[in-house]
Amino acid sequence: MIVCLRKGATRDEVGEVIRRAESAGCRAIVTEGSEAIVVSLIGDTRRVDESLFRGCDSVEKTIRISKPWKLAARAMEPAGRVIHVGDVGIGDGRIAIMAGPCSIEGMDSLLPLAEACRAAGAQILRGGAYKPRTSPYAFQGLGREGIRCLVEARRRTGMPVVTEATGSHRHRSPDGAPEERSVLEEVVSNADILQIGTRNMKSYGFLEVAARATAARRMPVLLKRGEAASIEEFLLAAEYILLNGNPDVILCLRGIRSGEAGRHLRYDPDIAAIPVLKRETHLPVVFDPSHATGDRRYVRSIALAAAAAGADGLLIEVHDRPEEAWSDAGQAIRPEALGEIVRAARAIEAARGA
Amino acid sequence: MIVCLRKGATRDEVGEVIRRAESAGCRAIVTEGSEAIVVSLIGDTRRVDESLFRGCDSVEKTIRISKPWKLAARAMEPAGRVIHVGDVGIGDGRIAIMAGPCSIEGMDSLLPLAEACRAAGAQILRGGAYKPRTSPYAFQGLGREGIRCLVEARRRTGMPVVTEATGSHRHRSPDGAPEERSVLEEVVSNADILQIGTRNMKSYGFLEVAARATAARRMPVLLKRGEAASIEEFLLAAEYILLNGNPDVILCLRGIRSGEAGRHLRYDPDIAAIPVLKRETHLPVVFDPSHATGDRRYVRSIALAAAAAGADGLLIEVHDRPEEAWSDAGQAIRPEALGEIVRAARAIEAARGA
Amino acid sequence: MIVCLRKGATRDEVGEVIRRAESAGCRAIVTEGSEAIVVSLIGDTRRVDESLFRGCDSVEKTIRISKPWKLAARAMEPAGRVIHVGDVGIGDGRIAIMAGPCSIEGMDSLLPLAEACRAAGAQILRGGAYKPRTSPYAFQGLGREGIRCLVEARRRTGMPVVTEATGSHRHRSPDGAPEERSVLEEVVSNADILQIGTRNMKSYGFLEVAARATAARRMPVLLKRGEAASIEEFLLAAEYILLNGNPDVILCLRGIRSGEAGRHLRYDPDIAAIPVLKRETHLPVVFDPSHATGDRRYVRSIALAAAAAGADGLLIEVHDRPEEAWSDAGQAIRPEALGEIVRAARAIEAARGA
Amino acid sequence: MIVCLRKGATRDEVGEVIRRAESAGCRAIVTEGSEAIVVSLIGDTRRVDESLFRGCDSVEKTIRISKPWKLAARAMEPAGRVIHVGDVGIGDGRIAIMAGPCSIEGMDSLLPLAEACRAAGAQILRGGAYKPRTSPYAFQGLGREGIRCLVEARRRTGMPVVTEATGSHRHRSPDGAPEERSVLEEVVSNADILQIGTRNMKSYGFLEVAARATAARRMPVLLKRGEAASIEEFLLAAEYILLNGNPDVILCLRGIRSGEAGRHLRYDPDIAAIPVLKRETHLPVVFDPSHATGDRRYVRSIALAAAAAGADGLLIEVHDRPEEAWSDAGQAIRPEALGEIVRAARAIEAARGA
Repeated sequence: MIVCLRKGATRDEVGEVIRRAESAGCRAIVTEGSEAIVVSLIGDTRRVDESLFRGCDSVEKTIRISKPWKLAARAMEPAGRVIHVGDVGIGDGRIAIMAGPCSIEGMDSLLPLAEACRAAGAQILRGGAYKPRTSPYAFQGLGREGIRCLVEARRRTGMPVVTEATGSHRHRSPDGAPEERSVLEEVVSNADILQIGTRNMKSYGFLEVAARATAARRMPVLLKRGEAASIEEFLLAAEYILLNGNPDVILCLRGIRSGEAGRHLRYDPDIAAIPVLKRETHLPVVFDPSHATGDRRYVRSIALAAAAAGADGLLIEVHDRPEEAWSDAGQAIRPEALGEIVRAARAIEAARGA
Repeated sequence: MIVCLRKGATRDEVGEVIRRAESAGCRAIVTEGSEAIVVSLIGDTRRVDESLFRGCDSVEKTIRISKPWKLAARAMEPAGRVIHVGDVGIGDGRIAIMAGPCSIEGMDSLLPLAEACRAAGAQILRGGAYKPRTSPYAFQGLGREGIRCLVEARRRTGMPVVTEATGSHRHRSPDGAPEERSVLEEVVSNADILQIGTRNMKSYGFLEVAARATAARRMPVLLKRGEAASIEEFLLAAEYILLNGNPDVILCLRGIRSGEAGRHLRYDPDIAAIPVLKRETHLPVVFDPSHATGDRRYVRSIALAAAAAGADGLLIEVHDRPEEAWSDAGQAIRPEALGEIVRAARAIEAARGA
Repeated sequence: MIVCLRKGATRDEVGEVIRRAESAGCRAIVTEGSEAIVVSLIGDTRRVDESLFRGCDSVEKTIRISKPWKLAARAMEPAGRVIHVGDVGIGDGRIAIMAGPCSIEGMDSLLPLAEACRAAGAQILRGGAYKPRTSPYAFQGLGREGIRCLVEARRRTGMPVVTEATGSHRHRSPDGAPEERSVLEEVVSNADILQIGTRNMKSYGFLEVAARATAARRMPVLLKRGEAASIEEFLLAAEYILLNGNPDVILCLRGIRSGEAGRHLRYDPDIAAIPVLKRETHLPVVFDPSHATGDRRYVRSIALAAAAAGADGLLIEVHDRPEEAWSDAGQAIRPEALGEIVRAARAIEAARGA
Repeated sequence: MIVCLRKGATRDEVGEVIRRAESAGCRAIVTEGSEAIVVSLIGDTRRVDESLFRGCDSVEKTIRISKPWKLAARAMEPAGRVIHVGDVGIGDGRIAIMAGPCSIEGMDSLLPLAEACRAAGAQILRGGAYKPRTSPYAFQGLGREGIRCLVEARRRTGMPVVTEATGSHRHRSPDGAPEERSVLEEVVSNADILQIGTRNMKSYGFLEVAARATAARRMPVLLKRGEAASIEEFLLAAEYILLNGNPDVILCLRGIRSGEAGRHLRYDPDIAAIPVLKRETHLPVVFDPSHATGDRRYVRSIALAAAAAGADGLLIEVHDRPEEAWSDAGQAIRPEALGEIVRAARAIEAARGA
């Protein structure tokens, strides 16, 4: 960590910065430049809070140099981690295709849709049973019944399944008592990958609980980036999971709330975060063009852009009659469109590696 | 809700939009303009998902006209809600002063600090015992011991206390088992206002649980705006709490992640959200200049700006030796500085009402 | 245009809105919904300022439905415009490759670099002679000497050239007098495409002057999107050029100032704007991955993502010894790297069309 | 400037960084930490382009420590500059009130409005004659006739006037020839303060021309912050003016394009930039709540917030019949409302200084 003091800082002011640095267990080296005085902290600065120096009148800037994560760093596994789910190796250089409906709507619709997705090239089935929704008045998922459908779809198609659990229960038990732990346990007992959604990326206590629950079963976690989380915060959320015993974290980008967001597209597709993450971490990175755009007319372009930028996988919402989907109807594509995306993505997979 | 189709939309395309609108329980009125075709939905559109129409090739825009919240709307209580905590009426036209340390660091430091805050004009004592932290390596709060200190400080000073509980447990019990429910219960049993932090604003399940737990005791909830939450999402999070039985929600602004954020200040102080919220909702709005700036040199300016813009209260971090604070050291101000802010804020309180 | 009034609006308030609409030359149709009153304006609303209704107490929202541009709309040329520059057809389905140095540094360096770019697959040569710089202390381009180098490079390689002129002169004449008009004239007389940079996208007077000067010579204009310009503002800036007689506008994306910008990359690469623009306008869209990233390590990923998302061209900074470039040294790639990008982009060009 | 290399950087990689630093005329000092290698550059780093090191594989970060501006720095005039216009001292601790219509609409409306503004407490009259507009179809100002009105209003009321000139001409001369220079000269010959608008903040050539033209007459420049300009870019734009001979630059904030912008308000009112600028520079800082909000219902709150945060002045749009204003009708307030704002602002002026 580097602390920059303004040029005219007094001896006392410099001394104060050194004192604080030492109180945090670091050694301080002072370099006097022509335009500023720089104090470099040597030692384990991961535990030093940047704000320790913010607010000193003489301090102009505090800059963290070492990355605050350790287990999530690329250096931990320079070749990149491959996470195996059934036959698929996520992070092995090929693009893993995960597809399915936003919300599971029942056995009758899920089973043929799962077959259609598999036929179109999907390797992993996605589907929401517990849906966190911004409005308390919106449909919140089929819950247990949804999980049952997913398990049956896996039995019939052989595709592994990924579904979300949230930090607290989403429905009431018959007697009205909360059931939180059971939802996480239910999902962990039945799915092949646990999805942690964008709204819960900073529910650190839940990340810890979920990490331990999945680690016990060697189940990967698909962690979605928060809508406004920085790359640093995203990797620190992954670090919470790694530190609690589960090394198999799949990072999932799904658009952030920035510039373009909300004007033409629902979010700003964070394509550039793909190569940045691939450089910073060994964990695989998948992209969700459906949530990133919120509009089926743009799903193909953004999916292919993500593929070209180096994504290890795509997570795509599919529905056989998108206009009748129970949630996010505007962003689901038909199975045939999925097939075309998969074909183009495979060609790009070959081209990007060239 | 209004759905705009491009000018040349075919009869079938318009028919499809009408069909979807009716399937969602609404009546559709078509107006053909010189530049577009507009379908207006009449009925209860709160449950209609905007994305139902997104992705139709003929649809250019979908616009929600009625507000998606109901209980949080200003119309529910046009004069504005006053929430009483001890002697203080939050929302009564005066500026409620809440102050105290970021993290509680022990009885020896908290008690004199609480006295100093009261002497400086604070009416409610704040202090963190359970701290959600971005890095798993950072100090996460004193936990139970912190709550004990807070209770003792209240006994000695007579000030009501506000403190945070999170959606999942933050420390292990002696035998390592998770203790989540007990943290919420512990806080609810001991505090006067339950704080729900920025990272949990979208943990909807937790909002429901917390709403029911506090409603049972008629305890207000101070809900912090998420770092990138829109005004709509913030009010819908409040709606989750209102709908689950607790009408006493204090909205707290603390900076968002936008334009300026991270360059000169930690966040972008969302001062303008104060008058916007005061117009949209009857719930009181308080402002936290300490987190919004992350820098004690700017706390005073931003606190006074919030007061002038109409805030119902200020939530300010104070420490007697800020440079030694265990967390967010850079943003805490000294009790004397608090006193000066309170004096200026009272004068502004008089001026703004003029 | 649609004006939404709150449900309880009085007859007078509705009347006031109708009156204003009519004063702007439009007819007003009132629809009373269960939750709001909607006034639809029929007529030429392009000249109606949205703010005409903002600020009426009864008005909740004003929504422009018809696009404010006319000449830039896709409907003007539904098949998409192809702009011919030498042998290259920008917008013809293939990816036009424009490459060269950020700043021209002299004949000795430009000529071999231009040859190397051509050998690597570039079709158009770019190079800056007049450089608008954020700091008055930074190198501002070789000026006339740079233009001379560019002309010579074209003579030797046969590649058409694109270079920037700014809204005012950038260097002094020998007697210190301003020389603005001559810079635009100089560039228009010597280049094949006039580049208008991001900082001047909203210098509307300059857009008009430049449009007329280039129209006279049937020279295309490459218009860069402003750092924070919305899609609407970008297309309206193009509209200024089209309206002043030049139909050949090439839209160039180069990153915007948003979410990720300034943390890991210099800007936020606005990949998603490619398909949005392709839908809204018939004008070709090229992408500049060099400025969008500011970091040569990410140029390839982002260039390929832009290609996959449908870009009509790429504008890439190349230098034979990037570390010695006089400006933007960090983002230039070597000619060999350009060759690899071109090969992969051609494969993606085939795949995306599949 | 500080260049951070990753821990394992080779001797050659470090050598390369040192070589580049020296080629830029700086001395390099290497500090090897436990987690990174840091190279500090000593010398005049204002001319060193940060991107010189970006793109080296071993370089993790480049950080500029010394501020890139010199003449705009607070240290140049630590007590703060007071700019005198008529009787008003902008920057003298009091809040200068500038008010008037967005667009000048003719003598009949301007004269009584100017009188009403003066009566309400305004000290300087604002009014647009040359209006840069986002749409080529929008009203672009009365031009010369507007300037004539302004001059007459000054003669009658005694108030100094501020009005905008743009980087290029905005209307045609009778024979259709461009008239740019004349617009700047016309404004400089007739106004008391030259306004440079947000869209031209980065038209550096124009800043230079305008600086020299105003310096010759000792006329202050009111420079508006670009919609997405950083504090750094804003101060560097001011630096262009200072460096070209005019020391009297008034910085004007008017909202930026960020978080809230475009949802409830037109822009995000950048209140926090007031204290940041007051710390960084000696130049006075005024705030324009009319453009920042785009909605008259919020002008008062934001004006008072700016006053409380330390603004040296307010620039407010006033119209006697706002609903009939020719541009930005939604944001103009009535003269009586101005009077109330001035009264409250004076009380806040006293309170903030306390």
